[in-house]
Amino acid sequence: MEKSDKVKVLFGQRVRQLRLQQGMSQEAFADKCGLDRTYISGIERGIRNPTLEVINIIAKGLSVNVKELL
Amino acid sequence: MEKSDKVKVLFGQRVRQLRLQQGMSQEAFADKCGLDRTYISGIERGIRNPTLEVINIIAKGLSVNVKELL
Repeated sequence: MEKSDKVKVLFGQRVRQLRLQQGMSQEAFADKCGLDRTYISGIERGIRNPTLEVINIIAKGLSVNVKELL
Repeated sequence: MEKSDKVKVLFGQRVRQLRLQQGMSQEAFADKCGLDRTYISGIERGIRNPTLEVINIIAKGLSVNVKELL
């Protein structure tokens, strides 16, 4: 795994963990964020490279600080 | 200021603060990160929307965790 991939994989795992803790499906979470379900799926699998704005939207969707996501 | 701008402005201010604390010019910092000086300038002014990979590169350039940048 390249270093640049690692940060995305770790981020995706954290997003999935928090989403599941809150009992949300990917679909419900995507709706809450106003993002596409396939995009959330890509984030959680670490294959997307989200921007700071999207990271912020995801943090709000999970009701956490951006800091807590990373 | 729109909400989506606020997170970029706060991020940029934090990058600038840490860079200056470490006595690096924008140019030296950009070289260290392998990024363009004008890109770093845009980050610090909050007009760029860096991806998670770029945030990670910047954190390494400042010798901090991604968490500490946000």
